[in-house]
Amino acid sequence: MPTVKLIEEAAADARVRAIYDDIKATKKIDRVPNFWRALAANPDNLERSWNQAKAIMKLGKLDLLTKEIIALAVSITNSCRYCINSHTAACQKLGLAPEQHGELLAVVGLYNQFNKLADAFQVEPDILPAP
Amino acid sequence: MPTVKLIEEAAADARVRAIYDDIKATKKIDRVPNFWRALAANPDNLERSWNQAKAIMKLGKLDLLTKEIIALAVSITNSCRYCINSHTAACQKLGLAPEQHGELLAVVGLYNQFNKLADAFQVEPDILPAP
Amino acid sequence: MPTVKLIEEAAADARVRAIYDDIKATKKIDRVPNFWRALAANPDNLERSWNQAKAIMKLGKLDLLTKEIIALAVSITNSCRYCINSHTAACQKLGLAPEQHGELLAVVGLYNQFNKLADAFQVEPDILPAP
Amino acid sequence: MPTVKLIEEAAADARVRAIYDDIKATKKIDRVPNFWRALAANPDNLERSWNQAKAIMKLGKLDLLTKEIIALAVSITNSCRYCINSHTAACQKLGLAPEQHGELLAVVGLYNQFNKLADAFQVEPDILPAP
Amino acid sequence: MPTVKLIEEAAADARVRAIYDDIKATKKIDRVPNFWRALAANPDNLERSWNQAKAIMKLGKLDLLTKEIIALAVSITNSCRYCINSHTAACQKLGLAPEQHGELLAVVGLYNQFNKLADAFQVEPDILPAP
Amino acid sequence: MPTVKLIEEAAADARVRAIYDDIKATKKIDRVPNFWRALAANPDNLERSWNQAKAIMKLGKLDLLTKEIIALAVSITNSCRYCINSHTAACQKLGLAPEQHGELLAVVGLYNQFNKLADAFQVEPDILPAP
Repeated sequence: MPTVKLIEEAAADARVRAIYDDIKATKKIDRVPNFWRALAANPDNLERSWNQAKAIMKLGKLDLLTKEIIALAVSITNSCRYCINSHTAACQKLGLAPEQHGELLAVVGLYNQFNKLADAFQVEPDILPAP
Repeated sequence: MPTVKLIEEAAADARVRAIYDDIKATKKIDRVPNFWRALAANPDNLERSWNQAKAIMKLGKLDLLTKEIIALAVSITNSCRYCINSHTAACQKLGLAPEQHGELLAVVGLYNQFNKLADAFQVEPDILPAP
Repeated sequence: MPTVKLIEEAAADARVRAIYDDIKATKKIDRVPNFWRALAANPDNLERSWNQAKAIMKLGKLDLLTKEIIALAVSITNSCRYCINSHTAACQKLGLAPEQHGELLAVVGLYNQFNKLADAFQVEPDILPAP
Repeated sequence: MPTVKLIEEAAADARVRAIYDDIKATKKIDRVPNFWRALAANPDNLERSWNQAKAIMKLGKLDLLTKEIIALAVSITNSCRYCINSHTAACQKLGLAPEQHGELLAVVGLYNQFNKLADAFQVEPDILPAP
Repeated sequence: MPTVKLIEEAAADARVRAIYDDIKATKKIDRVPNFWRALAANPDNLERSWNQAKAIMKLGKLDLLTKEIIALAVSITNSCRYCINSHTAACQKLGLAPEQHGELLAVVGLYNQFNKLADAFQVEPDILPAP
Repeated sequence: MPTVKLIEEAAADARVRAIYDDIKATKKIDRVPNFWRALAANPDNLERSWNQAKAIMKLGKLDLLTKEIIALAVSITNSCRYCINSHTAACQKLGLAPEQHGELLAVVGLYNQFNKLADAFQVEPDILPAP
């Protein structure tokens, strides 16, 4: 059960309603996802978070699918059930094929393993990125 | 200081030496990175891990840069210092431009934030991926 | 389904019963929460954990609500479903208003984002606390 | 070594310079912290992140010290070295006494322990917050 | 609901079927666990992961129960619901008594607490392992 | 640099001094480790934490080495640098051979990988432990 009162679309005031409409138009969906309904319990949080997401997830120097792949890799590493579901679906919608999804999972799994081994070894960096 | 004895290239036995040569040839580098030198303290671990990495990180249905981007997103989310350094460098080598790197970081940051908000709200998934 | 046998109040032996009574009296509740019933599968763990919680969560140099706010911030960051539920409820009971809850969530989200960006940048500390 | 080029104050362009000035004025400090210098490698990230931080961390329904206490609890739970340093210092500056700091640490430690025990037990929530 | 299509035993092709048979024979179980059915959505991932697990989890210089205890400690620390269930069951099957399980949980809880306190203190290592 | 003032042995008051002596006698060491010196900044925290550690880490239904192995597996999974160092050293002192250490690391790495894959798949538990 949610820990905050989700704001139904019909019950939203004008400010929240405008953001809901923008979410649906931008994402080309018919229903406002539960995450945004929960954020709407605090309209300041809803507005700030939506503006941030819209600015970061728009087409930029990285394409939309790459951005969703990053979102999914982060969500799996954080074990966020809601987010794994929504970003897996979003990747599929943007064209990630099952074999690509399988490779994505293999890479995510591999580095969750290697990250911990590198920490266990306490080895110093050797390949420094150009600052 | 490392928690295991790193195996220097000159001190490696034939089995480890062959893997070191393969690592350098595959990655087109002149020096075996510290992570692999530490794994070599247990040759079974070195061999198994290298074969796994080689199979997963080769060109497949996802291109090499996308795989390194996923590796970096995972490493940042796990806060692995060694891995953040090596995968940032690997992304740069594969052509990730500074502006793309900035967008990658923004996406990683955004979902580390949203993952925790979704958990805090305890909202149920609404957009289910096609199984 | 729980991975340990929860000890019902009626089935508790004298030692466990005394702790259950203290939990209910201290927390001013009528039912022993599931977490403590699970700990009771090992009475040493129950006793040690309850004494620790009672000592740490009592009114001290920090007030009770501040302590519950910290507990909730930690539980969200760890994505612990049971704990998010119980500490959200505990904060409400101690008077945390919905608008304050919204601000709490915004701060927790912000620093889950900034923590990962700081790790990604590998920047050195500049503002050192007085030791 | 940072993975991005830090932007020195003297080298900042007008847009970045204005944000740097606002950071210093808002935080009442003389030097722009390394975190913000690193974000400035991508001015969009700097601007978005600073505006978000300024909006969330200003005095609201929660006081400034409570917000910094939450930031520190999150940063410790995420093991972020840079952030632990800066938020410990910020808490001290806002008046957190050593004994209060000790209690804060005890609460953070306690729930990092209890979060994992609750997960290990797989117990269902019993005290539901009012939605 | 799973995010990938689980491959039923009856629907498995020859390659997957052979691995399923090996899983059941090795683990002395009658049904292929859901984790492996999900991995089978990508047969390369299934084969690589099973071979890795079989090689690492076989009797070696550490006994089978110690390896399962480590697997459970990791799974609790990562809060992985599926894995906590399966490794708790595996430990029980290998003879871990309830009192031993209670001690295991106490140790896991203790160090999840102490890990975060050590990070909060930012203390330097003093007892270095022999490299 | 530590975020709290470490209490030197010579500067400790009687209460802290007695605990320091007990730590050194129990662990058979000549110097109080930095972790405990940092905890001593708050004597209540020092006393509570030491008593808890002493009770949990003593010989019980699990032997001392198994308990240290669990502590190391947790510390690696949490990426705690200080704790990885001290528990690797403690395991060596209790007789963990290099080949056993290599197997321990392989198991820890494997399940950090599998935990995330299981979360990514969102599969339901199938092997339930006896409650």
